Amino acid sequence: MKGIFITFEGSEGSGKSTQIRLVRAYLKKKKKPVLFIREPGGVRISEKIRSILLDVANMKMGDECETLLYMAARAQLVREVVAPALKKGKIVLCDRFLDSTVAYQGYGNGVDIATIKRIGRFATCGIRPDITFFFDIDAPKGLSRINRPKDRIERRAMSYHNRVRQGYLAIARREPGRVKWIDATQSKDEIYAAVQQHIDRLLQGR
Amino acid sequence: MKGIFITFEGSEGSGKSTQIRLVRAYLKKKKKPVLFIREPGGVRISEKIRSILLDVANMKMGDECETLLYMAARAQLVREVVAPALKKGKIVLCDRFLDSTVAYQGYGNGVDIATIKRIGRFATCGIRPDITFFFDIDAPKGLSRINRPKDRIERRAMSYHNRVRQGYLAIARREPGRVKWIDATQSKDEIYAAVQQHIDRLLQGR
Repeated sequence: MKGIFITFEGSEGSGKSTQIRLVRAYLKKKKKPVLFIREPGGVRISEKIRSILLDVANMKMGDECETLLYMAARAQLVREVVAPALKKGKIVLCDRFLDSTVAYQGYGNGVDIATIKRIGRFATCGIRPDITFFFDIDAPKGLSRINRPKDRIERRAMSYHNRVRQGYLAIARREPGRVKWIDATQSKDEIYAAVQQHIDRLLQGR
Repeated sequence: MKGIFITFEGSEGSGKSTQIRLVRAYLKKKKKPVLFIREPGGVRISEKIRSILLDVANMKMGDECETLLYMAARAQLVREVVAPALKKGKIVLCDRFLDSTVAYQGYGNGVDIATIKRIGRFATCGIRPDITFFFDIDAPKGLSRINRPKDRIERRAMSYHNRVRQGYLAIARREPGRVKWIDATQSKDEIYAAVQQHIDRLLQGR
C-alpha cells in the first residue's frame, strides 16, 4: 500500500466535517492525489446499508445486527474504494472507520470489543489508518451543536454518548502513535493548526 | 429454550418450499404452536437487508460484505423472532440458516469457514437448529426448475452452484446427527415421507 490512510473520529458536533474540509483543501493545494469518503456509505451498496442503519423507523435493531451492518458497509467501501486508492498511492480521508464501531457499538452498546476487532479484521482486510484524528468534546456540548433532525444513533441517551466518548479516550490512550487527541472545544483555527502539524509531519515521513 | 428449531437447506429448485409447507400443515393439524420464517428476511429490518442482498443491481458486492449482510439479517431475525419463540416453546421452521452461509459464502465464494462460524456464533447468540433437512439435488437440475427471473446469487456460474452443493454434502457428513440428507430427486410424496419420519421421531423425544 503506497498511499496514506487518514481517518477522522469523534462525536457529531465535534467539528469533524469542517476539519476534513480544511485538510482536503490543504492537500489539494499541495497537488496531492486526495480522496474523501464517509462511513457508513461512500459507495452505492454501503449507502444503502447506511440508510437502514440511520433510519429512525428501525428502532428495534439489535446491537449485533447494528455492528454487522456497519462492518458490511465498511467491507464494501474498503474493497471498492479504500484498497484500490491506497494501492494507487492516493491519500484517502475517511470520515469514521473501525474506531467508530469500537466506540459506539463496543463501549456504547456493550458489544464485546475483542469480537468487534476480530470481525473488523475480516471486514477491513487488515487495512489500518496511518493516522487518526479524534476530535474530543463532551457529549452534551457536542450534541447541542446538532441543528437538524437527529438520526437513530444520535437520539440515544446522554449516558450512551458519554460511554462512546470514554471509549474514544480509551482507544487514544492505547494507541497514542496512531490516534491524535484533539481538543475540539478550541476555535476552528486552533484545531486546524494542530491537525495541519500532524499532516505535515506525516507527509515529511514519506 | 423449550421450543424446537427446524431449518431447511438446499439449493433453489430442490423443492424446499413445498416441503416446508407440508411440515407446517402437519404440525398445525397436530395443534403444535408453529412459526414459519425465511432467511434472509423474516422481520422488517432483515427484509430490507434481503433486498440489498438479492438486488441484481448490486453485482459489485464483495464476498465479505455479502457474508456480513447475511449475518446481520440473521442476527436481527434471531433476536426479534427465533429466540423469543423458542423461549415460549414454539416450533420454529426456518427456510435457510447459518448452514446456507457456510455453503454459499464459504464453500461457494471461498470465504474462510472458521471465520464464518465465529461470526455466526455472534450473530445467532449460539442458537443452533435441533434438526436440519438438506434437500439435495445436483446443481443443473435444481437451477433448471426455477421459472422466474433469477436473483443475484442464483445468476452465478454453475461451478459456483456445484461448490455450494459439495459444501452442503460436507456439512451433512460432518454432522449426521443434526443434518438429515434427503434425496430431492424423489417425488414430493416420497420426500415428505422421509421428512415426516424425522419430525415424528423428534416430537416423540420431547
